[in-house]
Amino acid sequence: MDTIRLAIVGYGKIARDQHHPAIDANPAYRLSAVASRNAAVPGVAHFETLEALLKEGPTVDAVALCTPAGVRTAQARLAMSHGKHVMLEKPPGATLAEIETLREDAARSGVTLFASWHSRHAHCVAPARRWLSTRKIQRVDIVWKEDVREWHPGQAWIWQPGGMGVFDPGINALSIATAILPRPFHLIDAQLQVPGNCQTPIAASLDFVDGLKVPIHAEFDFRQVGTPPIWEIHVETDDGRLTLEAGGSRMRVDGELREEGPDAEYAGLYERFAGLIGRGQSDVDVSPFRHVADALMLGYRHPVDDFTE
Amino acid sequence: MDTIRLAIVGYGKIARDQHHPAIDANPAYRLSAVASRNAAVPGVAHFETLEALLKEGPTVDAVALCTPAGVRTAQARLAMSHGKHVMLEKPPGATLAEIETLREDAARSGVTLFASWHSRHAHCVAPARRWLSTRKIQRVDIVWKEDVREWHPGQAWIWQPGGMGVFDPGINALSIATAILPRPFHLIDAQLQVPGNCQTPIAASLDFVDGLKVPIHAEFDFRQVGTPPIWEIHVETDDGRLTLEAGGSRMRVDGELREEGPDAEYAGLYERFAGLIGRGQSDVDVSPFRHVADALMLGYRHPVDDFTE
Repeated sequence: MDTIRLAIVGYGKIARDQHHPAIDANPAYRLSAVASRNAAVPGVAHFETLEALLKEGPTVDAVALCTPAGVRTAQARLAMSHGKHVMLEKPPGATLAEIETLREDAARSGVTLFASWHSRHAHCVAPARRWLSTRKIQRVDIVWKEDVREWHPGQAWIWQPGGMGVFDPGINALSIATAILPRPFHLIDAQLQVPGNCQTPIAASLDFVDGLKVPIHAEFDFRQVGTPPIWEIHVETDDGRLTLEAGGSRMRVDGELREEGPDAEYAGLYERFAGLIGRGQSDVDVSPFRHVADALMLGYRHPVDDFTE
Repeated sequence: MDTIRLAIVGYGKIARDQHHPAIDANPAYRLSAVASRNAAVPGVAHFETLEALLKEGPTVDAVALCTPAGVRTAQARLAMSHGKHVMLEKPPGATLAEIETLREDAARSGVTLFASWHSRHAHCVAPARRWLSTRKIQRVDIVWKEDVREWHPGQAWIWQPGGMGVFDPGINALSIATAILPRPFHLIDAQLQVPGNCQTPIAASLDFVDGLKVPIHAEFDFRQVGTPPIWEIHVETDDGRLTLEAGGSRMRVDGELREEGPDAEYAGLYERFAGLIGRGQSDVDVSPFRHVADALMLGYRHPVDDFTE
């Protein structure tokens, strides 16, 4: 396959820290352009906007949209209408409805649309899925707790509608759970803790169930102060207890370390994107985002103390 | 086609007022059984639960689930696993996730699953869709206002998570809008008025846009006191202004009455269900419910006065 000429749109922290190094490290890609209002990259063609890039820039085959979810849909539609393949950072849009229209647009344009979930490419997600596929699952406990002041400093948008609050990291847990568990599941109860001065929850307690009535419990909390973050999924089976730790980069069975790997989530994302382009396929799985929408629709909101950073 | 032997599950107000008369009036059906904890129907086999009906009752071909959304998914799954066709009252489930699993179950079981939206069968919905299909739409205004005390007396569940508040009637408007407009649309802004003692909004102001940037505005309000309800959709086009009134039963163009019909929404539902069964098809369109989830996820919640009935 020819080298994929790629543009990054929205060169913020996630593009600089994750996308750019992953692209540079993968010989399938060449970073041909960047469209960003606030940042340029030395040696790479720079444009203020995606519109300008498409009009005046070098030819690109694909774009990685690292802009906020609220503007991504319009950019994805524009890029696809120009025949470009599109990778969307997570979540794939601001609304579930717009993602459906994007899916139809991609099919019509004949391009690849990839709604990416970086946590699914954590080192132990695939091994965990394989290990679970031959065992009878009895219950699942998801624990995703971090100190919001440490991990999201200054991100005031997280407390606004659409910012999702604790579901911003929590959706990573849900993207792993939907990838490793063998059956789909759905929410039956959600209790949300919402600071009086915020629109989105600072903590959430969720109960799901799958088609065989297996209980799946999740605790998301932004108030994990003074201790390291906990990003864990525990699965009890008829043949031992699986634990994914450190966001999916470590895997234990009955407490014993089985797998451990470096952080290569974005390397995995770009490998998958190239594969999808090569096979002419799209991958638009909204299930993690749909669970968040269900939780915010069905959750009981308990007012808690105001949040001040 | 043979007569469809039907069971109603959940014989409450909507079953008594709407489903039962529509079934009796349609020669394609025979009401063979009712499963309901609180009500029996003279001359029809009665069971406390769907489980008992399936085990001990007369053979039925299909079930109409008129139970609350929270229990409907499990019942639908059970009925489909017994090879029964299923009609779901609106909304088709408590969560978006569970509806996806139902869709897969229906395909696997080879039965018809029909997620019904009764307002789509209002007399003027089909004429409005035809009229709009040849015109250029410039803007859409949806106005859905009623007095909650008059139209939902004693329905305390409407203020609990999952009750949807003003979206309980508002979803009817969205089911019509998604049926008559030629392109999908998505939410860009939602402002929700939530009483201090309630979990769900008493009023909502919504802005959507479609793929051609046509603005679609909706005003839902439960505080329409002392005047008749307003259930209207106005569509400005390059060739006149279409108005659907009275929940879709009257249609005007530039103010002039064009169509008017009796309330036969449930007759239309059962006609469609029989047609789907005859053709071996399912119809599970979640788009109205997805818009509600998007609005409750993205909406800015403004606290307003407590609600007392």
